[in-house]
Amino acid sequence: MRERTSPSSSTPPCPRDGRVGSALAESALARHTPLTDLAGFHPWFAQLRADCYTETQQLPLDELAGWRTDADTGDLQHDSGRFFSVRGLDVEVADGPVPRWQQPIIYQPEVGILGLLVRRFDGVLHCLMQAKVEPGNQNGLQLSPTVQATRSNYTGVHRGRAVPYLEFFRGSGRTRLITDVRQSEQGSWFYQKRNRNMVVETTDDVPAAAGFCWLTLGQLHQLLQVEDLVNMDTRTVLSCLPWPGEELASRLPDADDFQASLLRSCSAAAGAVHALDEILNWITEIRSSAEVRTTPVPLRSLAGWQRQDGVIHHETGAFFDVIGVQVQAGGREVRQWSQPMIRPKDTGVIAFLASRIDGILHVLARCQVQPGCLDVAEVGPTVRCTPANWEHLPTGPPAFLKEVLGADPAQIRYDVLLSEEGGRFYRAVNRYVIVEVDAARTPEHPEFRWLALHQLADLLRHSHYVNVEARSLVACLRSLLGSDNP
Amino acid sequence: MRERTSPSSSTPPCPRDGRVGSALAESALARHTPLTDLAGFHPWFAQLRADCYTETQQLPLDELAGWRTDADTGDLQHDSGRFFSVRGLDVEVADGPVPRWQQPIIYQPEVGILGLLVRRFDGVLHCLMQAKVEPGNQNGLQLSPTVQATRSNYTGVHRGRAVPYLEFFRGSGRTRLITDVRQSEQGSWFYQKRNRNMVVETTDDVPAAAGFCWLTLGQLHQLLQVEDLVNMDTRTVLSCLPWPGEELASRLPDADDFQASLLRSCSAAAGAVHALDEILNWITEIRSSAEVRTTPVPLRSLAGWQRQDGVIHHETGAFFDVIGVQVQAGGREVRQWSQPMIRPKDTGVIAFLASRIDGILHVLARCQVQPGCLDVAEVGPTVRCTPANWEHLPTGPPAFLKEVLGADPAQIRYDVLLSEEGGRFYRAVNRYVIVEVDAARTPEHPEFRWLALHQLADLLRHSHYVNVEARSLVACLRSLLGSDNP
Repeated sequence: MRERTSPSSSTPPCPRDGRVGSALAESALARHTPLTDLAGFHPWFAQLRADCYTETQQLPLDELAGWRTDADTGDLQHDSGRFFSVRGLDVEVADGPVPRWQQPIIYQPEVGILGLLVRRFDGVLHCLMQAKVEPGNQNGLQLSPTVQATRSNYTGVHRGRAVPYLEFFRGSGRTRLITDVRQSEQGSWFYQKRNRNMVVETTDDVPAAAGFCWLTLGQLHQLLQVEDLVNMDTRTVLSCLPWPGEELASRLPDADDFQASLLRSCSAAAGAVHALDEILNWITEIRSSAEVRTTPVPLRSLAGWQRQDGVIHHETGAFFDVIGVQVQAGGREVRQWSQPMIRPKDTGVIAFLASRIDGILHVLARCQVQPGCLDVAEVGPTVRCTPANWEHLPTGPPAFLKEVLGADPAQIRYDVLLSEEGGRFYRAVNRYVIVEVDAARTPEHPEFRWLALHQLADLLRHSHYVNVEARSLVACLRSLLGSDNP
Repeated sequence: MRERTSPSSSTPPCPRDGRVGSALAESALARHTPLTDLAGFHPWFAQLRADCYTETQQLPLDELAGWRTDADTGDLQHDSGRFFSVRGLDVEVADGPVPRWQQPIIYQPEVGILGLLVRRFDGVLHCLMQAKVEPGNQNGLQLSPTVQATRSNYTGVHRGRAVPYLEFFRGSGRTRLITDVRQSEQGSWFYQKRNRNMVVETTDDVPAAAGFCWLTLGQLHQLLQVEDLVNMDTRTVLSCLPWPGEELASRLPDADDFQASLLRSCSAAAGAVHALDEILNWITEIRSSAEVRTTPVPLRSLAGWQRQDGVIHHETGAFFDVIGVQVQAGGREVRQWSQPMIRPKDTGVIAFLASRIDGILHVLARCQVQPGCLDVAEVGPTVRCTPANWEHLPTGPPAFLKEVLGADPAQIRYDVLLSEEGGRFYRAVNRYVIVEVDAARTPEHPEFRWLALHQLADLLRHSHYVNVEARSLVACLRSLLGSDNP
């Protein structure tokens, strides 16, 4: 493991004639390359974590430098009018379990870039990863994509340093675009937020700057087994990569049953329980019939929410708080700043039930209304909830939560605590779980469908189909390919 | 031509094993079938037009029974709170030719159904078409899909008759779904409106009720050469049909050069100038970089707009008016009603420049911001404008208008006047034009790309990519397959 490109990296990269599918497959299987080795990664990362101090101190919302509370509405806004704001939203979902509520929500209309720069070394695709501090991370440093930039970042509103490697995502250098799709973020906390998920391959001889390193997909998959290390932005970008199911299948002949079913699930040739048109019909039906109305309202006037001692919280103490923080950090564009953040009150559970159907792994996806969805509803995990919140709701726990929380350990294929975006959310940690079940014993429900992974990949070519929690789980599922765990 | 199904229709329909692509191809080529003949269609339609009287009388907006002007905002709303409303919109497009304006716009948040029921007779797919009166049509009766229903229609808010054949689109009968996708409508006049475009094949023995008839795709294509006959809803549903390019190519070996290039353009196997990922990247780039802000504002307060003598108009007299009408009609669910309508001030031009590139017909599509777009911008025609309006704007005429208006008649492949939706728009007629040009002599522009028809078909499987004007042109282009014209 080296911080900078090794001598082998200065050999000419593979010419463009190599198919990207093949390079992706090589990368997914590569755990040791001449360039990088995870045995070297961990000490390097530990050293950076020790060096990159970050101190986050909670401050009352009234005392955030650069931020003001609008006199009329109580909305929280930056003095520049940019970055983001915290406002109020009134939500009506005619037939939902809770037909009407109000809540604070983050407005961030600008489209940022989550960009992963990839390059072939000795024919194997490597991803340029950034060790990045975010104020909301409980452990400070996590592994981020090459570029994680809001529009304010790169138009200079931050008055910070230039974003390294951004130029590769703005058309400079010898590059080939692999993925470019806007995807939504947390529909419970963001109003219609989306970021551009980009993967760009370069043939330039790009050195890894301090705090950056080149890793293969196989190595990232191993790191996804580590608690709280691979950040949300990395997970969502990885999920949007096209996946070389056929290529991989031909390379893993000895995979066991779960592995083989997972591999087949990545390959369009394997088919699935439902044709893609049936899946699109299911989404269209839910989006057409749901009667959802979201109305911006003043943050000050939200029913059930109070601003007290510089914190906005729900009268039950549940859900989340809006808090203020002052951040001192090294390793970020701006060294000291203040901002509001969302602080969830408890750890959530984000889970897919998975099942081998005709030898192909399927996941039970739920198409569900969320207040921040641009287009009514998106396809999400089987379960996405904070169990503690349900004590405050009249509806009881969501479907299939029991199956996840009560799963026999032998059924659990993945179970790792991971953080949500540390730039807006303060210590938002979720337990990501994949549980294998028997589909034949799982009751049918109009909001749920069994999907193969290649179908999720088809949907992920387009915006607004697959929500951020399900995208994280897609990355987690793929990380089980070729692993020793299942 | 018969109004009801002929004896041959009671023979058992083709079993489900027949591939729909093959049935679609047969239908596209069929001009005469045992069931229908256009020689009989025209007298039948003329008779209906004579019988289905419709009288539309302009009334001041203050005198529309069942409608009220909101005391605070001046918005026009139905007493029930349903159907639609006319409100005000403030639009900012940072880098647009007009960076800011205000305008009236129609809000209709409910998703309606535009449904086409199809059935095979003697192996040939037929579409059940409805002769339907709409108050905005200058000629009253036009050819509509089987079902054209707002949610208010089928939830009974209209207190009218049940919508015939609606049950086939709600899961009843022996049906197979062919297409189900929500698509936007006029982004200049509607705020985020979309309808569900559905095509459903039945194997039931369905008789055609009075005012309905079974036509093949080939016959609909011939009728698309007739001025103001095939309505907008039919055109958009036809555009969303999957198109059997390969099937057709094998059946039309003697097609001439234009025909052959059009056929190849329908077949994914033929390829295209840009890969689909490049097209998605182009759309993503425009949607990400455009800074568009739309803010609802009171209709009463719109800068530049006046309500005078019961009509809302722009101070220049340009663009459109909002008028009131009282309608007396036979052949519609409710016999007499009043409503506001949008009345454009002049005839528009909606055109594709088309070019044979490597033997494959491409059209020059423009990805353009419109105020009513749910997702910033959609792919539209090369030219979509009302030439008379440009006299009132500082920017001069839009790109390529000159090429369309000044085209050599020998270059014109399609040129027919067609109406927009007659339920909301009063005599909104556009000249739909397809002009063949030399792509090599057409200047490049970041908002424009050459697309093959099979790529538009790929985009049309999903919502919010291709706008309604481009969808109409797709139907018009396909209507040139196997025709005698080009």
